[in-house]
Amino acid sequence: MFESAELGHKLSKEEWKQEEPKLREALLNAQFDLGELKKFPVLIIIGGVDGAGKGETVNVLNEWMDPRHIHTYAFGPPTEEEADRPPMWRFWRALPPKGKIGVFFGSWYTEPIVSRVLGNSDDAQLQTAVDEIFRHEKMLVDEGVLLLKFWFHLSKAQQRVRLKALEKDPKTRWRVTAEDWRRFKIYDEFRNVSEHVLRETSTAGAPWIVLEGMDHRYRSITAGKILLDALKKRVAEDKRGQARIDAPPVMPQLDNLKLLRNLDMSQRVDKKRYDKRLEKLQGELNVLSRHKKFRKHSVILLFEGADAAGKGSAIRRITAALDARKYHNVPVAAPTEEERAQPYLWRFWRHVPRRNVVTIFDRSWYGRVLVERVEGFCSTADWMRAYSEINDFEEQMVRHGTILIKFWLQISKQEQLRRFKERQRTTFKRFKITEEDWRNRKKWGDYEAAVCDMVDRTSTEIAPWTLIEAEDKPFARLKILKTLVDRFEKAF
Amino acid sequence: MFESAELGHKLSKEEWKQEEPKLREALLNAQFDLGELKKFPVLIIIGGVDGAGKGETVNVLNEWMDPRHIHTYAFGPPTEEEADRPPMWRFWRALPPKGKIGVFFGSWYTEPIVSRVLGNSDDAQLQTAVDEIFRHEKMLVDEGVLLLKFWFHLSKAQQRVRLKALEKDPKTRWRVTAEDWRRFKIYDEFRNVSEHVLRETSTAGAPWIVLEGMDHRYRSITAGKILLDALKKRVAEDKRGQARIDAPPVMPQLDNLKLLRNLDMSQRVDKKRYDKRLEKLQGELNVLSRHKKFRKHSVILLFEGADAAGKGSAIRRITAALDARKYHNVPVAAPTEEERAQPYLWRFWRHVPRRNVVTIFDRSWYGRVLVERVEGFCSTADWMRAYSEINDFEEQMVRHGTILIKFWLQISKQEQLRRFKERQRTTFKRFKITEEDWRNRKKWGDYEAAVCDMVDRTSTEIAPWTLIEAEDKPFARLKILKTLVDRFEKAF
Repeated sequence: MFESAELGHKLSKEEWKQEEPKLREALLNAQFDLGELKKFPVLIIIGGVDGAGKGETVNVLNEWMDPRHIHTYAFGPPTEEEADRPPMWRFWRALPPKGKIGVFFGSWYTEPIVSRVLGNSDDAQLQTAVDEIFRHEKMLVDEGVLLLKFWFHLSKAQQRVRLKALEKDPKTRWRVTAEDWRRFKIYDEFRNVSEHVLRETSTAGAPWIVLEGMDHRYRSITAGKILLDALKKRVAEDKRGQARIDAPPVMPQLDNLKLLRNLDMSQRVDKKRYDKRLEKLQGELNVLSRHKKFRKHSVILLFEGADAAGKGSAIRRITAALDARKYHNVPVAAPTEEERAQPYLWRFWRHVPRRNVVTIFDRSWYGRVLVERVEGFCSTADWMRAYSEINDFEEQMVRHGTILIKFWLQISKQEQLRRFKERQRTTFKRFKITEEDWRNRKKWGDYEAAVCDMVDRTSTEIAPWTLIEAEDKPFARLKILKTLVDRFEKAF
Repeated sequence: MFESAELGHKLSKEEWKQEEPKLREALLNAQFDLGELKKFPVLIIIGGVDGAGKGETVNVLNEWMDPRHIHTYAFGPPTEEEADRPPMWRFWRALPPKGKIGVFFGSWYTEPIVSRVLGNSDDAQLQTAVDEIFRHEKMLVDEGVLLLKFWFHLSKAQQRVRLKALEKDPKTRWRVTAEDWRRFKIYDEFRNVSEHVLRETSTAGAPWIVLEGMDHRYRSITAGKILLDALKKRVAEDKRGQARIDAPPVMPQLDNLKLLRNLDMSQRVDKKRYDKRLEKLQGELNVLSRHKKFRKHSVILLFEGADAAGKGSAIRRITAALDARKYHNVPVAAPTEEERAQPYLWRFWRHVPRRNVVTIFDRSWYGRVLVERVEGFCSTADWMRAYSEINDFEEQMVRHGTILIKFWLQISKQEQLRRFKERQRTTFKRFKITEEDWRNRKKWGDYEAAVCDMVDRTSTEIAPWTLIEAEDKPFARLKILKTLVDRFEKAF
C-alpha cells in the first residue's frame, strides 16, 4: 500500500509557483459551487504518520479556500458527555451539513489502530472494528457524503529525518514531543496494522489516498488536486442529476404476511384485572428505574404502529411510573431544515441518551422503511440499505450498554376504522383526525408488507421487536409494561 | 413572602375528585393549542424546600398533559463541556422551542442561593447574581417565553414532619438522604436568602408563585390551575395578535455621526512594508496561539462592517496564522427553522467556544441592531432592548475568561462603489454582487446611524469595539492583526 509513497516525490519551487495560483483559484471556485449547490457535504479524513505534514496540509487547504465554510475537528480523548454515549456519537455531532467541508483529524480509525498496535486488542477485535467502519462509511457515501481519506506516509528513515529536522528548528521544536519518539519506536507495528486497515477499508466509494509526506510542495499540491478533481466531478454529476447508485439491490420476493396475521388479536383483559395489574407493573417499573445498576445504562424505548394503534396512551402509562427528570420524549415528525442537510440517521443520533436517562421515541428511524418506503419519499435503494444501516446503528447502542426495546403495535383494519370514527365524534380537538390518516389507511396492504419486512430484517438477537396485539388497549398496555419490567430485570 | 404558604392549605379527596378530571382535560386542550399555535415556548422553573413535593408535582403535570411535548431537565453539577463555557450556556442548551414546555429543576437560582447560604459568597456577589437573573429573565420574557416560576415551600416544622414521613415509608425512604438532613439544619439561612432572592426577582413578567407543599392535592391542583390560566391567557392574546410590549423605550435624539466620520480614512501602507509586517504579525500571532495560557481561554473574534469592507479577506489573514484545528468559523446567515423557534441570542449561544478554541464570527449578534433595525425585521422595542441584552451576553463570556475582540470595518461610500464595480468585472463567481448589496447601499445613512448607536451602546470597558479604517485593505489587515497580538499579550 505504501510503496509508491516512499519514492521520494518532490516538487520544485518553480513547479509550485506555476501550479499553486491556478489550483487555488480552481479550488475556491469549486468550493463556491459546492456551497451554491448545497446538495452534498465533503468529509476529509486525515490519518498517517507523525511528522508527515498532516496539520500543514490542512492549514494550506484552509488558506487556499474560504475558511468560513470549512470546519476542522481534532478528536482527542472523548469528553465526559461523549464517553457517556456510543463512540460514533461524537463523529455524528461534527458531521458537516450539505454544502460545507469538514476535516477530521483523528477519526473512527484512530482508536482501533492504536489499540491493536499497543496490544490492547487482538486481531479479531480489530476485524470487528474494521467491518463497522466499512459499513459506516458505506452508509455515509450512500447518503451522499463525498468522503476523502488521506493517509500521510513517511518511511521509517524519512520519519527519523523529519522529526529531527522539526526538533532542530526553534520555530517547530514545540511540535515534537517525547510521545512522538515513543511512537517512532513502534513504527513497524504501526505500519503493519495501518496497512491492513487501509487495505480493508479502501472501497470504490471511499478509497484511501496515500500521500508521501516528506516534501511539503508535493503533498500540498497533490492533496489539493485530488480534492479539486473529486469536487468538480461530483458537482458536475449532481448538476446533471446523475444517479450515483449504480445497481439498486434486488427486491426480494416476499410471502411472509403471516407474521402480523398470525397474532392472536382476540386477547383482552377486563377492567378490574387491568387496574390491579397496571398498578403493580407501574410500581415494579418505578422501583427498577431507581435500581443502582440503572445508572450504568441508557434506555431507548421505541414505538411504532399503525395510526390509532394507541402508542401515545401506552407511552403515558410508562411515563406515569417514572420520575419526569429521568425520561425524555422524542415525538418524531418531519425533519427540520438542519436535519435535512444531514444523512438520514443524524436526526436520531442527536437524541441518543446519556447513561441514566430514558428516551422514548414515538415513531423512529424505522420511518425510513415504513412511511418513506410506502410513500416513495426515498428510492428503493435507499430503504433497502436502511435495514443494515439501522442494524449497525442499534448494535452500536446496545454494545455501549443501551437497553433498546422496540414495540410494534398492531390493530386490525376494522378496529382502526372504529377508532377513527370515534375520534371524529369526540370533542377533544387533539384527537381530531386528519386527511393523511385516511390516505394512509388506503395503503394498508403496502404498510403491512413493509412492517413484515422490517420485523424480519431488523429483529435481531440484540434488538428484537416485541409485537403487541393492540386490538384491546388495556391488554396492549399491560403487555408493554410487562416487557419493560422483564427486560430491565434481565439487564440488571 | 412565605406567610400565605404556611397556613396549612388542604384539599379534600372529594374536592380532588371533582377538580382533577376537569383540570386534566383543560390542560390537555391548552397544551394542544400551544403546540398548534407554535408562537411561544413555556418555561417552568421549579425551586423550593426539600420534601415540598417538587418532583411529585412535575410528575403529576406530566401525567395530566401529553408528556411528548414536555421536556424536564434536572441540573446537577455541570459536565466538563458545560464547565468549559459560561454558566448560562447549559440553560440555553435546554431551552424549549416555541410550542413546547420545558421544566427546569435546579436553575440559574440554585448556585447563587446555595453559595450564599454556605457562606461561599457575600451579599454583594449575591446581588450581582440576582441582577443578572433579573436581566436574563426580562430578556426571555421580552423574547416571548412564557416563564412560570414555582417555589414549593414548607415551614421548618412542616419540613421535619415531611422528611420523617418519607423516611418511615419503605417506598419513599430512598428519597431522604443525609444531605437532606444537613440542609434541614440550615433551614433558616436558606429561608432568608431565598426570600431575598425571590423578592428581588419577582417581576410583572415573571413573578414567583409560592406554593405550600405539604398537601399533595392542594399543591398539584394549584400548580395545574396556575399553569392553565397562564397558558389560556397567553394563547388568547397571541391569537388576537395582541402586542405584549406595553411601552417601547423612547428613541434617543442622536447627533453623533461624527464617530465614524472622524476616522482618518486616508491611512495607507505600501506593498513592501505590508508584506514584511504581515509576516511578522502572523508569526507573532502563531506563537501566541500556542502559549500555554491560551488553553485557559476561549477566544471570540467578531467582524462587522459594510458590504465589501474586506471582512472575509481579513479573516483569511488571521486563519492563515493559526492551526486549522484551533479555530472555527461561523459565517452568520439567516436563522434556520430551529433557530427561529428560539430567543434571538440562542443561535449564537450554541456556537460559544470551549476553552482553547478560537471562534470567528463573520457578522454576529449585532445583526439585531444593524440589519434587523434598518430593514425593520424586528420592532423598535426589540432592537432597543438588544443593546443591554448583548452587553449582558458579552459580560458573561468575558467573566468566564473569553477573550472577546470586536471589529467594525469602515469604508467610504465611494470606495464601496469602486469595489462593487470591481466585483462585477471580475470573473470569480464568488465575488459576484447581489441585488441586495445595491439595496443595502441605498440605506447608507440609516446604517451609519445604526453603527454609531451600536458602538456607543456596546463598546464597554470589558468588550470594546475596535474601529478599522478599511479604505486601504493592507492597512486594515495589519491593524486587525496588531490588535489581536496586543490583546493576547495583555491577556497572558
